[in-house]
Amino acid sequence: MPAAPDEDDPGLAPVLAANDAFYAAFEQRDLDAMSDVWRHDDDVVCTHPGWATLRGWAAVSASWFALFQGDQPMQFILTEVRATVRGDAAWVSLDENLIAGAQAQTVAALNVFERVDGTWRMAVHHGSGIVAR
Amino acid sequence: MPAAPDEDDPGLAPVLAANDAFYAAFEQRDLDAMSDVWRHDDDVVCTHPGWATLRGWAAVSASWFALFQGDQPMQFILTEVRATVRGDAAWVSLDENLIAGAQAQTVAALNVFERVDGTWRMAVHHGSGIVAR
Repeated sequence: MPAAPDEDDPGLAPVLAANDAFYAAFEQRDLDAMSDVWRHDDDVVCTHPGWATLRGWAAVSASWFALFQGDQPMQFILTEVRATVRGDAAWVSLDENLIAGAQAQTVAALNVFERVDGTWRMAVHHGSGIVAR
Repeated sequence: MPAAPDEDDPGLAPVLAANDAFYAAFEQRDLDAMSDVWRHDDDVVCTHPGWATLRGWAAVSASWFALFQGDQPMQFILTEVRATVRGDAAWVSLDENLIAGAQAQTVAALNVFERVDGTWRMAVHHGSGIVAR
C-alpha cells in the first residue's frame, strides 16, 4: 500500500502515484509502462543493487528489458515511504521489500522525479541491498 | 577534481561546490564541516553502502560521528560527476573512488541538495557498493 498523502501537503499525492506506477510496472515486467514512468533523457540515471550506475535513457531502458526477461512472480511491499516535493522536483525514500518465489530481500531505494508539462517522471532510481551485520 | 560547470547552466557551480564540501568533510573526518553541509531536518535521509537507510538528522549525524572514529587516511577520486538543478532542488550522480590505506573501492552515489535561504544543503546521500560480476 502507498503511504497516505499528508493533508498538509497535497502536492505529495501525484508524486506518490508516480512512485506507485514505477513499482507496478516493475512487478508486472511491463516495459511500456516502465517507459511511461521515466523521462527519456540523457541525464537520467539508474543504479540497480550492486550495479554500476547506468546513465541516459538508452542504457537505463536496456537494463529494464534485461531484468524483465525472467518469469518468476515478484511482489514489492513498500515501507518507510517518505516523499519530499520542492517545486518541479521531488524524491521518495523507501524500503523495497521484495518477495520473488521463496526469496525475500530488502532494498533501500531513492527515487527522484521531475515534473514535466504537469506530469511527474522518474529521473533517478537508486537501489542498494542491505547487508546483514 | 570536480566537474567543470556547464556554461549553459551557471546554476550548477554552487551545487558542485556543496557536493565538493561534502567529500572534503568526509576525507577530513570533520564533523563540524559535515554538519554544515547537511540540512538539520527530520526528513533528511542517508544510506551508506550496505546499510539500512537512516532517517532524520539525529540518526544521520550519529552515523558520521561513528564513521569518523577511524584514523586511516581516506581519499576520494570523484568521477562521472553529473549535476542537475531544478529550482531549489538539485542532485548529483557520481562514482566515489575511495582509496583507504591499501584498499580501493568504487561506490555509486547520489546526493540530493535543497537551496535554503540561498545556500545548498544536503538532503539525501545514497551510496552503494558495486559488486564485481
